[in-house]
Amino acid sequence: MPPTPPFSFRVTCTDGAARAGVMTTPHGAVETPMFMPVGTQGAVKAMTVRGLQDAGARIILGNTYHLWLRPGAELIARRGGLHRFNGWPGPILTDSGGYQVFSLAERRKVEETGVHFRSHLDGSAMLLTPERAVEIQALLGSDIAMVLDECPPHPSTREAIAASLQLTGRWARRGRARFEAVRAGDTDGPAPTTPGQAQFGIVQGGVFADLRAESAGHLLEVGFEGYAIGGLSVGEPSEVMYDVVGATTPHLPAGQPRYLMGVGTPADLVEAVSRGVDLFDCVLPTRNARNGQLFTRLGPLNVKNARFAEDDAPPDPECGCYTCRNFSRAYLRHLFVAGEMTGSMLNTIHNLAFYLDTMRLIRDAIAFGTFDAFKAAYLRALGTRPFAP
Amino acid sequence: MPPTPPFSFRVTCTDGAARAGVMTTPHGAVETPMFMPVGTQGAVKAMTVRGLQDAGARIILGNTYHLWLRPGAELIARRGGLHRFNGWPGPILTDSGGYQVFSLAERRKVEETGVHFRSHLDGSAMLLTPERAVEIQALLGSDIAMVLDECPPHPSTREAIAASLQLTGRWARRGRARFEAVRAGDTDGPAPTTPGQAQFGIVQGGVFADLRAESAGHLLEVGFEGYAIGGLSVGEPSEVMYDVVGATTPHLPAGQPRYLMGVGTPADLVEAVSRGVDLFDCVLPTRNARNGQLFTRLGPLNVKNARFAEDDAPPDPECGCYTCRNFSRAYLRHLFVAGEMTGSMLNTIHNLAFYLDTMRLIRDAIAFGTFDAFKAAYLRALGTRPFAP
Repeated sequence: MPPTPPFSFRVTCTDGAARAGVMTTPHGAVETPMFMPVGTQGAVKAMTVRGLQDAGARIILGNTYHLWLRPGAELIARRGGLHRFNGWPGPILTDSGGYQVFSLAERRKVEETGVHFRSHLDGSAMLLTPERAVEIQALLGSDIAMVLDECPPHPSTREAIAASLQLTGRWARRGRARFEAVRAGDTDGPAPTTPGQAQFGIVQGGVFADLRAESAGHLLEVGFEGYAIGGLSVGEPSEVMYDVVGATTPHLPAGQPRYLMGVGTPADLVEAVSRGVDLFDCVLPTRNARNGQLFTRLGPLNVKNARFAEDDAPPDPECGCYTCRNFSRAYLRHLFVAGEMTGSMLNTIHNLAFYLDTMRLIRDAIAFGTFDAFKAAYLRALGTRPFAP
Repeated sequence: MPPTPPFSFRVTCTDGAARAGVMTTPHGAVETPMFMPVGTQGAVKAMTVRGLQDAGARIILGNTYHLWLRPGAELIARRGGLHRFNGWPGPILTDSGGYQVFSLAERRKVEETGVHFRSHLDGSAMLLTPERAVEIQALLGSDIAMVLDECPPHPSTREAIAASLQLTGRWARRGRARFEAVRAGDTDGPAPTTPGQAQFGIVQGGVFADLRAESAGHLLEVGFEGYAIGGLSVGEPSEVMYDVVGATTPHLPAGQPRYLMGVGTPADLVEAVSRGVDLFDCVLPTRNARNGQLFTRLGPLNVKNARFAEDDAPPDPECGCYTCRNFSRAYLRHLFVAGEMTGSMLNTIHNLAFYLDTMRLIRDAIAFGTFDAFKAAYLRALGTRPFAP
């Protein structure tokens, strides 16, 4: 067998600040810009693996916090890692667990060593450190692991953000050291279930451009295979988020992937790509599907609306997904009103296909050097919002 | 376009009382014996159409009561009928609505004309008559419509059952008359959305063989395209049910399909086929899947059981379904414990594939003249129950 290819990233094409590229991981290559569906507890909600593949998914995200608590990282490692466990054959990115600790867990206490918290499942006392985050993700065997960062609440003062940045920087150094030790196999740590795993750093800094630049500097000193922008889409206006992204990407290496965490709406994807972002994840397409909101080229459509009761059109007439090829708004509305799980399944298929189609259109536009025109037309169509109440 | 083929049934092979056949409907042919997954509200719960097809489903059931109340039979007819509405391209059988009226609806009152009740959704006053049951099913456009019968509670006295039989017989005559009038197109009634729809009568009679024979006699006088056995699997012991089935099928025409309604377990299917039954429906495989119970060749497996937490085997190692080809008991247990919808989806795929595989094995055994040996081996394997607690 040939050796597992190391992680690599190559920009194949640029159009302004937008870039198209290929990211190679131990479980295969991914064209960028790309959106990653969120598989919180080891499954993308209301989807099967074949459904994800059919919708065009190439890389998915797993949540370290959830999998650590249940069924446990060691149990998954004994199954051969997350890929063997959940049947997803392509690349997987895992977060560090930090975001959920800061948003879900009870009785948090942040110290230099890490963050103490109580499990939201059974109240048991847990400690997540930069080193432990590395070890858990080595056990899970994701293709891309994220370093542990502190996620300050929004809004926070400039002073609080600046202090938090320093801790995030120290944690980044510790996390990278542990990652390299585990990778070298010269420690008592766990055997990674995916050889060749990469690790990304996370830029913090709130909405302050100079703090973002400082945070990026910390991470570049340490050195990672890729860089994420964290702590956005937490309540700030979209324009502020776009400005922060635009002020951050110039401080990140051109030859490495950039990942905007937890973002966002279809418009957010296009705006961030135009500022040099390569990777995204967000629960919006899957969560909103289960709530009856379908994304379309002409804006969101709330399928529970009575106006769709006798509407025989597919959710998005321009979409080629399984749902749009076979089912009407009238049928999807009926399933939603009747509380049928099949409705959540069909809505999720469409929303993910819509997001992944958007990414394909973005990649094609960059390759053809027409990204600006594409962006303008895409945002204009979204803005027409014919489905608004 | 060639004319829509009329409904027909042909026995191709017998082995003892067991029969293999082909039932041709306006939406295609179905090999029998066959199991029909239940699509209560126009969707088989936790399944898509392509998932059903992949699992081997050829004909599904729709519940007239549910679809009549929501979204409404007229709305579905305006969509072109149930097939156009829910995207299922093959045959559909609809029940009469009676069973749900007798089990779900509030403030029931049975009169000669029909049954008055209140909707379980909004309490509105409704009346279901033999004629209305025909009209609703004509609007839905199923391939096989069921006549309205009275479903007496279990247990009932012999006197109550005998009296109920007479009403069921009179309703059968009225239902058939209305069906023929609608089919002839010479009435003010609805235009059937599926030309060539067939209608089955329903034999009642509780656990009393002579009353079953009398009920069959009523229906044969009227004349239907097929005959169902209703009012079983309502609490009586399995052996009693098998005896009643065995005592009823000899009174039904050999050249027409026989449908045992609402039955049953894998063992029930094999036992009933050996007594001459061709068609089945039951919520057991789909409902139990959502509750974590998987059917296997060696008996049921409760996936929530802690003993499966680290079990890397598929649910049923001999099964070739999507779930068994790709996922372990350990993963399915995790999904169940974590409350992931994907678990219900994968469990339902397996349970339906298991039921439909069983029907295929039954048909093959009949064709090879080895049904008795198959039945003995199948029941013996089920009886080993290695998964029992």
